[in-house]
Amino acid sequence: MGVNSNRAEDFSSQDTTLRITTESVMPGMEIHKVCLPPKKTTLQKLKQRLGEIFFPDDPLYRFKNRTWCKKLLLGLQFLFPIFQWGPEYSLKLLRSDTISGLTIASLAIPQGISYAKLANLPPIVGLYSSFVPPLIYSILGSSRHLGVGPVSIASLVMGSMLSETVSPHDEPILYLKLAFTATFFAGLFQASLGFLRLGFVIDFLSKATLVGFMAGAAVIVSLQQLKGLLGIVHFTTKMQFIPVISSVFKHRNEWSWQTIVVGFSFLVFLLTSRHISMKRPKLFWVSAAAPLTSVILSTLLVFCLKLKSHKISVIGYLPKGLNPPSANMLSFSGPDLALAIKTGIVTGILSLTEGIAVGRTFAALKNYQVDGNKEMMAIGLMNMAGSCSSCYVTTGSFSRSAVNYNAGAQTAVSNIIMSTAVLVTLLFLMPLFYYTPNVILGAIIITAVIGLIDYQAAYRLWKVDKLDFLACACSFFGVLFISVPLGLGIAVVVSVFKILLHVTRPNTLIMGNIRGTNTYQCLGRYKEASRVPSFLILAIESPIYFANSTYLQERILRWIREEEDWIKANNEGALKCVILDMTAVTAIDTSGIDLVRELRKMLEKRSFQLVLANPVGSVMEKLHQSKTLDSFGLNGIYLTVGEAVADISALWKSQP
Amino acid sequence: MGVNSNRAEDFSSQDTTLRITTESVMPGMEIHKVCLPPKKTTLQKLKQRLGEIFFPDDPLYRFKNRTWCKKLLLGLQFLFPIFQWGPEYSLKLLRSDTISGLTIASLAIPQGISYAKLANLPPIVGLYSSFVPPLIYSILGSSRHLGVGPVSIASLVMGSMLSETVSPHDEPILYLKLAFTATFFAGLFQASLGFLRLGFVIDFLSKATLVGFMAGAAVIVSLQQLKGLLGIVHFTTKMQFIPVISSVFKHRNEWSWQTIVVGFSFLVFLLTSRHISMKRPKLFWVSAAAPLTSVILSTLLVFCLKLKSHKISVIGYLPKGLNPPSANMLSFSGPDLALAIKTGIVTGILSLTEGIAVGRTFAALKNYQVDGNKEMMAIGLMNMAGSCSSCYVTTGSFSRSAVNYNAGAQTAVSNIIMSTAVLVTLLFLMPLFYYTPNVILGAIIITAVIGLIDYQAAYRLWKVDKLDFLACACSFFGVLFISVPLGLGIAVVVSVFKILLHVTRPNTLIMGNIRGTNTYQCLGRYKEASRVPSFLILAIESPIYFANSTYLQERILRWIREEEDWIKANNEGALKCVILDMTAVTAIDTSGIDLVRELRKMLEKRSFQLVLANPVGSVMEKLHQSKTLDSFGLNGIYLTVGEAVADISALWKSQP
Repeated sequence: MGVNSNRAEDFSSQDTTLRITTESVMPGMEIHKVCLPPKKTTLQKLKQRLGEIFFPDDPLYRFKNRTWCKKLLLGLQFLFPIFQWGPEYSLKLLRSDTISGLTIASLAIPQGISYAKLANLPPIVGLYSSFVPPLIYSILGSSRHLGVGPVSIASLVMGSMLSETVSPHDEPILYLKLAFTATFFAGLFQASLGFLRLGFVIDFLSKATLVGFMAGAAVIVSLQQLKGLLGIVHFTTKMQFIPVISSVFKHRNEWSWQTIVVGFSFLVFLLTSRHISMKRPKLFWVSAAAPLTSVILSTLLVFCLKLKSHKISVIGYLPKGLNPPSANMLSFSGPDLALAIKTGIVTGILSLTEGIAVGRTFAALKNYQVDGNKEMMAIGLMNMAGSCSSCYVTTGSFSRSAVNYNAGAQTAVSNIIMSTAVLVTLLFLMPLFYYTPNVILGAIIITAVIGLIDYQAAYRLWKVDKLDFLACACSFFGVLFISVPLGLGIAVVVSVFKILLHVTRPNTLIMGNIRGTNTYQCLGRYKEASRVPSFLILAIESPIYFANSTYLQERILRWIREEEDWIKANNEGALKCVILDMTAVTAIDTSGIDLVRELRKMLEKRSFQLVLANPVGSVMEKLHQSKTLDSFGLNGIYLTVGEAVADISALWKSQP
Repeated sequence: MGVNSNRAEDFSSQDTTLRITTESVMPGMEIHKVCLPPKKTTLQKLKQRLGEIFFPDDPLYRFKNRTWCKKLLLGLQFLFPIFQWGPEYSLKLLRSDTISGLTIASLAIPQGISYAKLANLPPIVGLYSSFVPPLIYSILGSSRHLGVGPVSIASLVMGSMLSETVSPHDEPILYLKLAFTATFFAGLFQASLGFLRLGFVIDFLSKATLVGFMAGAAVIVSLQQLKGLLGIVHFTTKMQFIPVISSVFKHRNEWSWQTIVVGFSFLVFLLTSRHISMKRPKLFWVSAAAPLTSVILSTLLVFCLKLKSHKISVIGYLPKGLNPPSANMLSFSGPDLALAIKTGIVTGILSLTEGIAVGRTFAALKNYQVDGNKEMMAIGLMNMAGSCSSCYVTTGSFSRSAVNYNAGAQTAVSNIIMSTAVLVTLLFLMPLFYYTPNVILGAIIITAVIGLIDYQAAYRLWKVDKLDFLACACSFFGVLFISVPLGLGIAVVVSVFKILLHVTRPNTLIMGNIRGTNTYQCLGRYKEASRVPSFLILAIESPIYFANSTYLQERILRWIREEEDWIKANNEGALKCVILDMTAVTAIDTSGIDLVRELRKMLEKRSFQLVLANPVGSVMEKLHQSKTLDSFGLNGIYLTVGEAVADISALWKSQP
């Protein structure tokens, strides 16, 4: 045993100190013992694990080492961020917030009406939804730039999912009830995710999936708007590409040229203003003001030219007054409950994704933190409150927040200003919308959703990661040709499948020594790396699980076979030792441990030595618990590949 | 820039050579450039990836550099392993095979009858199934010790799945048709998995899942046998714990003491013989011969004492003769097709798992290889042929193979001998089974399945891996209380969830330098590792995906926050550089790349430097493709943590 006798401690002794041999086996090369991690009870491990799962951000760190009084204040600020910035609020901030609040209000009114139409709801519900939820968010929310209101994706999904079962035209009351119930469940789901700190659920909608989903949804929604733009009266309520397209051309006799002229003129106007704002971000107000301008202009146009009699349909009568209570319309029984819950969960998760992503984007720009779980609770509570006051699903809207940010918003007060503006509209200005043509709403919707088609992002995905692009394509075509929840489901499955594929077929690399160093690197990649005679050094690049233990066994045996063939062909010294570099094996399960045992036995029979280099803490622990470590004993486990090679070569020299 | 000017090459230059600076920054420390992997086209990458997925074992390596004639012979041997061992077959081998063949035949006959009853099929079908499939396997199969025949799990699952829809007593012909059709689909599914080289699908049934599943199935099956053991006539056909137990006690008036006495005596006899063989493996023949002995003894008992009139039910008339063809009974249409396909897939996957696992186990003992995909094709073809000759699902049986191996089997000829013995039985000995009591079959089944309850394995799982134990418990209780496919499904979901959990919440470790070396290790685990002032070195222990990029960002920022707090508390030098050790980051997707960019920007704003150490090939490639590499430029990417620390410290010294 020679040089190694002082490493012969039993691995099962639980000390975690590092022992260094006094005698070096190579100049400058000391051999270190691989430690077990500090011993912990199952309860401690569980606590730490659950802490990592549910509280990765350590939300209570602010409260450490504070007085009780300070803790109370911090707690209050934690629950209601308004107490954080409220005391420092100034007139200067109010001026900025007033300007940005009025700007987003001018966007919110036509958007509210349009998106409500998208969800097949009465236009007034869209305005109601721009009043109550922003007020609640301004108290609870932690983002300073989020513009709250209905968004296109959630509206569209709610409209498509509900109208496949209940017709909004034949049973408007039932439809409205379902929409409010779905909103309630969306809020409940969002708030529970936040409360249970399960925020990571939304992480499973990857950016790639969302790019495809949004593009698909945007195409479908734009096509659906052809109903309004062409003046078609009888249109399919389905949301798939083929029925929508066939519906457009089946009803060619219903096309009305007056509607078409008005619609496309305003569409061009809106798209141009959007283009200008995109080219010059300073002119953001052009696209922000364009919707309201179009609504005013088109309403005047219809009113003055009496186009109503010329086959241009208008919004018509809208009731004046504040949000009526709607808690009595929530129904938690009946045959459509499952539909309401399903719609609630899908719209809830989608609106949450948009809200959190938008919040994080603008927070990153201004360098402050948005707490994901807290945001979820804020958005969830605002939707639950909304469902009791005639609002449907709302969240942080991308378009509204961008305008808000560009207009110089400083705090959530801009949301309060917007609500006030909507309040004034609801109380006094509703009759002005009587002559607003429906076609203008279609044009506004198209302009809004067309920005969701991000073909450049799709191209980047294709260039960088083909499987991400596949997930993106799946969600795009799934949404376009099948349905929104199924399309999303397929994309999530593809994304998860990608992770599993990587685990099922992990890379194994053959490593060589980089001359003059103790570093070992992949032979194929580093030309300066060279084989070490008599050794086969393999790096396993994945945790070892049941899903890959069979594959890894086959693959490692194949590496050995190929190495032996290579040695035979090149007349090199015979293979004597296989080193597995376990640095990237970050976890192991019982099947993985069986693989290690099995492999050791197999190689022993063929008189090869199996050595593990640098197993991580959890792997060492499991090897120890399963008594596998004992069978390795001396010369079986090393801290680095370099030490293993040095020590084993020295041993061979001393025992010729 | 000083010492680093010679590393200033543009990363986008695609050379893969390693450059070493002539000037060392520290004694014995050279700085190496991190290489991109050799450039490959998308097609080459796809080819390599598909090769790893479908041909990890490189099945064609035998054919490399051979003459055409040799290639043909090798091909024939590859397709029909009988050509491999056939030419070398000797009389000595035949003697061993005959002994083992007759031994397993004595087991096969009572087992065949019993398992057919388990699947609610006529007993004769069990004998038919021990005749044709073993013959086909002996030609196609690559295992030398596999004993082929019906197995308890597949029988039980088929019985439970089919009889929930079709009653075997009221519609015996339809039931039989469905059983043969399901067998056909099981075979088709198995053969396709092998042919399409999708063998890894069965890897998703982890050992932990199977331990729980087999125990649950064994409990249910044993309880179901109480019908026969207690002499109950009216019994539930359901397979859940509660209906079975309630059925036992509801029909207490049907219990017959004569049956109970006979049944339990033989059960004790069988269990004792099993216990003896387990204690002394040399006495394997005791448990191997026990079933046949019990059948003969009990038949004689019933015949001599005329117990038939005393309420002991017997098998009754069995038709003499060979397997009748049953191809005409396969039906590929009708309302029950979906059921047949579902049953086929579930029984197919289960029997495949058992067959492959058993084959691999005995191959490992005798040190030869079993080709998983080829085995699947062999088992699949044998089941397809079986479905056309009145056989139901068969595979390599664990009990039969163990007896076969212990009895000294050398080649697949032992299967041929067994078939011949079954043939003789079918042709001449069937009337002898007229008086065999049904109760004895129940006792044989219980003895067989009780061995499937491996509580020691479950205890090991608990000790080594709590989440594996959870998967095991889920499949146990799922099978016991819900249903076989759902129980299995839940267990697979739990196993996959475990993988995803590891990816969603990966470990991040803070690393320190091990004194006197260039090795960096986890600070918490190695007490000899010490912090490097001004550096924060983090190891990320997982690929970076959409599912964990948000978490990792939060976690890394928290590490930095905690490090700053620590520095403040200990009055150390300010933090200047964050090094991410990417060794274990074996893959990255577009969200991961966004994380790296985002993090770099964030840290730059706070004037920290972000450095990556040892990114693996695929990660480097994606960083390059997404142009992220350019933003890192010099002093951004290093081969090892040691080089990064040395180089950056030297740089700081030269620019005070």
